[in-house]
Amino acid sequence: MRRREIVKVALGKEPADTAIVGGRLVNVHTLEILEADVAIKGDRIAAVGDVAHTIGDRTTVIDAGGRYITPGLVDGHLHMYHSYLGIPEFVEAMLRHGVTSTADGFYGQGIVGGPDAVRFFKDAFATMPIRLTFLVPTLAYLQNRELGLTPAPGISKDEMFDMLRWPDCYGLEEPPYLPISWEWEEFLDLFEATLEAGKVISGHASGITPAELQAYVGMGAATDHETVESLDGLQKVRAGMKLLMREGSGCTNVAELSRVRTEHGVDPSTLGFCADVASPEKLWKDGGVDQNIRVAIANGVDPAEAVRMASLSVAQTFRRDHDLGSVTAGRFADLLLVDDLASFDIRTVMFGGEVVVRDGTFVAELPSVTYPGPFYDSVQLSTTVTPEQLRVPAPAGSASVVVRALEVKEGTLVTRETMHDLEVSDGIVQPDIERDVLQIAMIDRLGKGTGIGVGFVTGFGLKRGAFATSVNAVCENVLVVGANADDMALAVNELARVGGGKIVVADGEVRALVELPLLGLLSEDPTSVVMGKFERAFAEIRELGCELASPFSQLEFSGACGEIGDLKISDEGPVRVNPPEKVEVIVSTSED
Amino acid sequence: MRRREIVKVALGKEPADTAIVGGRLVNVHTLEILEADVAIKGDRIAAVGDVAHTIGDRTTVIDAGGRYITPGLVDGHLHMYHSYLGIPEFVEAMLRHGVTSTADGFYGQGIVGGPDAVRFFKDAFATMPIRLTFLVPTLAYLQNRELGLTPAPGISKDEMFDMLRWPDCYGLEEPPYLPISWEWEEFLDLFEATLEAGKVISGHASGITPAELQAYVGMGAATDHETVESLDGLQKVRAGMKLLMREGSGCTNVAELSRVRTEHGVDPSTLGFCADVASPEKLWKDGGVDQNIRVAIANGVDPAEAVRMASLSVAQTFRRDHDLGSVTAGRFADLLLVDDLASFDIRTVMFGGEVVVRDGTFVAELPSVTYPGPFYDSVQLSTTVTPEQLRVPAPAGSASVVVRALEVKEGTLVTRETMHDLEVSDGIVQPDIERDVLQIAMIDRLGKGTGIGVGFVTGFGLKRGAFATSVNAVCENVLVVGANADDMALAVNELARVGGGKIVVADGEVRALVELPLLGLLSEDPTSVVMGKFERAFAEIRELGCELASPFSQLEFSGACGEIGDLKISDEGPVRVNPPEKVEVIVSTSED
Repeated sequence: MRRREIVKVALGKEPADTAIVGGRLVNVHTLEILEADVAIKGDRIAAVGDVAHTIGDRTTVIDAGGRYITPGLVDGHLHMYHSYLGIPEFVEAMLRHGVTSTADGFYGQGIVGGPDAVRFFKDAFATMPIRLTFLVPTLAYLQNRELGLTPAPGISKDEMFDMLRWPDCYGLEEPPYLPISWEWEEFLDLFEATLEAGKVISGHASGITPAELQAYVGMGAATDHETVESLDGLQKVRAGMKLLMREGSGCTNVAELSRVRTEHGVDPSTLGFCADVASPEKLWKDGGVDQNIRVAIANGVDPAEAVRMASLSVAQTFRRDHDLGSVTAGRFADLLLVDDLASFDIRTVMFGGEVVVRDGTFVAELPSVTYPGPFYDSVQLSTTVTPEQLRVPAPAGSASVVVRALEVKEGTLVTRETMHDLEVSDGIVQPDIERDVLQIAMIDRLGKGTGIGVGFVTGFGLKRGAFATSVNAVCENVLVVGANADDMALAVNELARVGGGKIVVADGEVRALVELPLLGLLSEDPTSVVMGKFERAFAEIRELGCELASPFSQLEFSGACGEIGDLKISDEGPVRVNPPEKVEVIVSTSED
Repeated sequence: MRRREIVKVALGKEPADTAIVGGRLVNVHTLEILEADVAIKGDRIAAVGDVAHTIGDRTTVIDAGGRYITPGLVDGHLHMYHSYLGIPEFVEAMLRHGVTSTADGFYGQGIVGGPDAVRFFKDAFATMPIRLTFLVPTLAYLQNRELGLTPAPGISKDEMFDMLRWPDCYGLEEPPYLPISWEWEEFLDLFEATLEAGKVISGHASGITPAELQAYVGMGAATDHETVESLDGLQKVRAGMKLLMREGSGCTNVAELSRVRTEHGVDPSTLGFCADVASPEKLWKDGGVDQNIRVAIANGVDPAEAVRMASLSVAQTFRRDHDLGSVTAGRFADLLLVDDLASFDIRTVMFGGEVVVRDGTFVAELPSVTYPGPFYDSVQLSTTVTPEQLRVPAPAGSASVVVRALEVKEGTLVTRETMHDLEVSDGIVQPDIERDVLQIAMIDRLGKGTGIGVGFVTGFGLKRGAFATSVNAVCENVLVVGANADDMALAVNELARVGGGKIVVADGEVRALVELPLLGLLSEDPTSVVMGKFERAFAEIRELGCELASPFSQLEFSGACGEIGDLKISDEGPVRVNPPEKVEVIVSTSED
């Protein structure tokens, strides 16, 4: 529908399609809550306020019954592939929680499937009742180049510039600051081209120094979603960034960051929300940025301001506020009816003038998606993996060695470098289950020719068995941790056989499997089935001795993933993050 | 300079060109005032905060001496041609008052000189130390089409669409709401094309009804600068508009509109500033949006918020906040040192890293401008005007008539329709100087073939003589008011002879002349000379009996100018505004 069709309705010359009456509007411009009705024509809002003159015989009148009317929620940074869900399943989870717009560059899909996969997801989203702010997936180009690692074909430099020119591209997805600090020409070019096109650079400023922050903002980075401390957040807002305060799986920052508003008093227009990473359970139960609203209000943020942060703030950041982010004339008719703001109990969700959730029940029929054939065959090992390949050989004649190991810890994705004495037996460095020094390996599945990188890890606590994943941020390789090489090899080979997923193995048997056949990243199952499979896998992992709350996430982030430090495993062996350096597993040896 | 050149400076690898130390920064993002230093490289800010690491041997260090550092001011809506100044003179006046960026479509110039004139001004501004937000001058197309009047060639519909595609075009300049309410296809097309290009529709919502407001905002109008009452302003912000609160010549709205913030509590991000119309005296003495800051603070607005409204708010509106509107890394180094915020006493002005005002003294050398030859010959009357052409003939045999007359009133640009009995003598309706019913006429000077429209006016108070202008909003015709037709004709013909301007005539002699030879709109004189000539003209007008504070403005706005009501004069005779209708001068006659 063309926007002009609402003019006649606003002026009372033609009836509205739908009118919502008797609600209390959360006005995210003025931050007031006011009685106001809403007239809708086609997929847009035609008038707000007194809309009696727009109601005709054929107008559907919805009685809001005193509920709050808010804009449909707008997430500023969310990787759908981290939910492991297929497209309709992801969209349904979002809509159930009132999220009618999301920002994504599909970088994981791009690493595995290249630009065709990115375009496929972008185009498939366009058929769904959700509004996508597509951003160039710079990580699908960068991968771990800054750590000196070999990238998969993914997205080429030229393809990033092509995508930037797509008319439905709104900017860049979290290019981190290191390529800027290091003055990599292709990133400097990309940043300048983005600003010249009037598009937006969303940032990723984890662990940034004050000087780097200035350089990064100076090159145009407009947002950060990686902030965890309110004082750090205040510094970033002072520097001119918009904080996208994150409430995701394993990264719950809103309680702390609310203080940027409640204690430091910065203007709410400088603050927005995102989820970034969300497991299926999180999306299904806690939701998306609706959860950010709840946490912010619980931490003292004014409810209207919290709603603003989940809508208008993000729409303004991406310069889409003429279309999104407020219940005002001309914007898409994406809106919610909410019983109570503090609990943000969403009763009705409307997308583009159509009710998709009615009285808490999902009523939309989502289009089905047929995925391309190559999506199903993406876990390509160079050969079947043998247990021998996963073992660390000791220097001839050594009786024991000192190895460096990643230290996995509850509550952080940073893995410190630690040192351990390990015994040598049959020329092989032996893991030490007693002291929780296990083996970890990353295996190339993208035809890079890099092979297998092996190392040690502490913190998983497995007493036996192994578990593996074909998903991990910025690599999307197969990553496995285990108490013995036989189970590790089985886990890897079995994942390859089924086309990817998450697997738990013990004593030569598969104990749990979450198939992710789409690019080795995503499921085709209904969300409840995916959740059930994950639950089973978590139970099996606990059964094997691992007590981490999110063992798969911890495994995924043990793999090299940009500048999240300190020591990580890659398909080229252990790698130190800061400064980047490939390092040997064995630090020193003791002879017999 | 490319933006990337600041990266090395931010990181301390290369020295800054300039560092400003010892100042108190008005941070328009957080609305704090903080001690912070500023490092500059080329024309951009490289770092803010602790910048000691950027200072090298060749860095020019400016000691701010505890002064406030604010962004260069950004005006959201200002017609430079209403200042009557040439380009360098206008730019100097702006810079002296800290205004380093302005938004203009040059619509007056476009009406007289077509697209070539618009492009000339845009390109000439690009050579000046000022940043232009160029907007398509829709009024140069619309003129008074909505009143049914014949337009000059001006800007064609296609030329508007061409300009919208210019890469340095940021949107539309105040297309009013009537063409939207009336669903004129070319405006609906233009609005949709603007939004599709990610550009911005600045609005003009004077006298709009609630339903029309919804239709107008619904089509994408993003701002309004015409608001005069705070409750009306609140309604517009609620509807999703940004208020550009105006402090111009004859339109001083900031005191009242500050209440939208101070009493109604709307977020400061929804409020911005503009001057719209500014005489040379106003620009020279009170300044541009620096005056808005002073008035806002005097009316209770927090100083940091007032500075935000004069900088970041407007930059965000036009989606230029990555380049403009705050003292943060990457933005242009346009900034001010200010002694005191309440008096906003500007000591130093920097544009693009160069000091243009130092300790209150203007130190920049502005490029000279050579105007195109055709600019000097733009007042083209179809023939020399005779007194007879300016008289209103009475119907044969009538002794007296009732005429309709515009009523000019101090403090408003709206001219009401009033009725008056006038004597007939020698077949001519006689003005009545005693009762202040004078003649007014508009004469086509743009080759339209419309000729001369005559009518009556009350409120000017002239006892003798006449005064005339070749400038008037939306017509840019010659407009004259007088106590007798002989002086009126002389005024008009003399203006044509000199190529345009403002003139005061009495008893067959020119008493004062402000030459505006550029398109009949602008002077080439230094500002002090222009002010002197205006002062002389004002004195002469007062001498002739007119006590209006701004007699030329009142004359200009007696001419048809869109939907500013009620009765106006045009080159086709008197015209009623709402609803639009051409009307006769003589309402009824009485016979002998």
